[in-house]
Amino acid sequence: MAELTLAVDAMGGDTGLAVTVPAVAQLLKRHATVRIQMVGQPEPLAAALKEARLDSHARVSIVPAAEVVQMDDPVSVALRNKKNSSMRIAINQLREGNAQAVVSAGNTGALMAVSRFVLKTLPGIERPAICTAIPTRTGHCHMLDLGANVDAEAEHLLQFALMGSAVVRALDGNETPRVALLNIGEEDIKGNDLIKQAATLLQEHPQLNYCGFIEGNGIFAGEADVVVCDGFVGNVALKTMEGTATMIGHMLRAEIASSWLKRLSGLLALPVLQGLKRRMDPERYNGASLLGLNGIVVKSHGGAGVPGFLAALQVALQEAERNVPALIGATLAADAGGDIPTA
Amino acid sequence: MAELTLAVDAMGGDTGLAVTVPAVAQLLKRHATVRIQMVGQPEPLAAALKEARLDSHARVSIVPAAEVVQMDDPVSVALRNKKNSSMRIAINQLREGNAQAVVSAGNTGALMAVSRFVLKTLPGIERPAICTAIPTRTGHCHMLDLGANVDAEAEHLLQFALMGSAVVRALDGNETPRVALLNIGEEDIKGNDLIKQAATLLQEHPQLNYCGFIEGNGIFAGEADVVVCDGFVGNVALKTMEGTATMIGHMLRAEIASSWLKRLSGLLALPVLQGLKRRMDPERYNGASLLGLNGIVVKSHGGAGVPGFLAALQVALQEAERNVPALIGATLAADAGGDIPTA
Repeated sequence: MAELTLAVDAMGGDTGLAVTVPAVAQLLKRHATVRIQMVGQPEPLAAALKEARLDSHARVSIVPAAEVVQMDDPVSVALRNKKNSSMRIAINQLREGNAQAVVSAGNTGALMAVSRFVLKTLPGIERPAICTAIPTRTGHCHMLDLGANVDAEAEHLLQFALMGSAVVRALDGNETPRVALLNIGEEDIKGNDLIKQAATLLQEHPQLNYCGFIEGNGIFAGEADVVVCDGFVGNVALKTMEGTATMIGHMLRAEIASSWLKRLSGLLALPVLQGLKRRMDPERYNGASLLGLNGIVVKSHGGAGVPGFLAALQVALQEAERNVPALIGATLAADAGGDIPTA
Repeated sequence: MAELTLAVDAMGGDTGLAVTVPAVAQLLKRHATVRIQMVGQPEPLAAALKEARLDSHARVSIVPAAEVVQMDDPVSVALRNKKNSSMRIAINQLREGNAQAVVSAGNTGALMAVSRFVLKTLPGIERPAICTAIPTRTGHCHMLDLGANVDAEAEHLLQFALMGSAVVRALDGNETPRVALLNIGEEDIKGNDLIKQAATLLQEHPQLNYCGFIEGNGIFAGEADVVVCDGFVGNVALKTMEGTATMIGHMLRAEIASSWLKRLSGLLALPVLQGLKRRMDPERYNGASLLGLNGIVVKSHGGAGVPGFLAALQVALQEAERNVPALIGATLAADAGGDIPTA
């Protein structure tokens, strides 16, 4: 395996260095060859690296960046007024070939806009999409778009399906990923015009293993490896999952607190409850890919802790090892080539 | 309180009489004056009522209906070919003033189409909507539309907001329900064109207590009493909630089964786990209202058990006691009246 370098936006997210530095320390221990460029404000960054005993690590370097994109900065500010932000400079490193992937916990809108501006999209891709793994009963699926596009057309959903399939081939070694469209019923007559048009495109596409519609509860049933939807619906679904899981956690705590007997019973059940917590832990599935760009950009949840940021770093590393953008590019090139005989 | 009659589609749902008859028996015990019309195929219905010792109950009558709308019947079949279905005849009873509300566990598309055809919509309502209570950390909220409309316009979302507010006023006694629009971010600039236009309409409406955007995870936080969305997004969100809760249940069982220690620990935790199950029980929140019609129609989940169907009957009874369609009508009339001076 070639030596790979990740450019890390060391300052991004709700907690910045307190999370990014310890996560990088763990990644370096797990992966013997990976190199890390920590991009950020030199003084606090150097201090944090020193504290973590990474200041003289052979595979860690500092790339200075004077500014930080704040979580509430408007996209326009990140794009036009903060050209020396840690986010922007990390992405520049990628464009210049100094790194093979970028990881940032900075604000999603800014990360998408700056990535798109600096890296541009792959040929044939009109809209990049946000994609992440979602746990299912049988393992996981990949779902996209999760919010990059609020007004997708059928042709975009087809591109999402192709990109999602390429990711599953690369990361899960599944050569014929089952692709489903998220809809409000499984029957062919259900859904809005967008979904019906997209269903025809996906059905007819020779490179896709399209398996039909899936409903919101079907996402978790393991019926599909790639779940395609527009960014508005995908974002609502993703956040509804988070909200439901959080509320069930609240209910469980309220139930345990409701009587002395239940407090005791809850104490005795600690191994089970801790096991459940580990299984449900959103940090395990942290790391959303911005697909369709000329380069690998992985977004960590702004509030992710060290295990979560580590998971995002690993997603980036895995995508770099398999060169996901090249796979997506090849898929689309085959697609364009395949169209000629039928035209 | 006036004597109220519910027309029950006795044959609808996955299990029909096995659920509807016992649920009605429980309702009759709880409510000393409510009358029930059981609409269905006379022979099996009479047998089921006899078995439940309801065959000579003073407040139960049989309304014969030769046919049953099957769960997989296309809407067109229910509407055109099954004019003697239990669903249709129950709705006819409502139109003719023989009942004040209908409850059916039959298929949603058919129930909406037949209700709309027979009852018509209230003046000023272009699209009926499906609305249900959703549990939150602090109680519950009402969410609509959950799938009646897949291509709503901003004006329809405004009507949903007005209808949802009327329901919350009637059922929860909350005179100024907080109304939120489901969106993919809380900032004003987020969302698609539909949401932005709807936000302006809701903001400017004198009868609404509009409190801004809410995200998928915010539904459960108790930040709003009415959550408004189009039917596609609402249906995906609702089913994603169900799917997430089901998957967490699976994870819990898998965790308990994973070792002898955990099986023992799970056994000791039984009071807590059963309490959690009760809190999470979807049957408690069963009963979705088809709002915007000239009459009260409540849809029970097709797979609901006796407690669930009972909950749906109680939603119908409560809406009949408060005369929700009249309240919605008055809201819209005030709305139309209010428009004249500003025109």
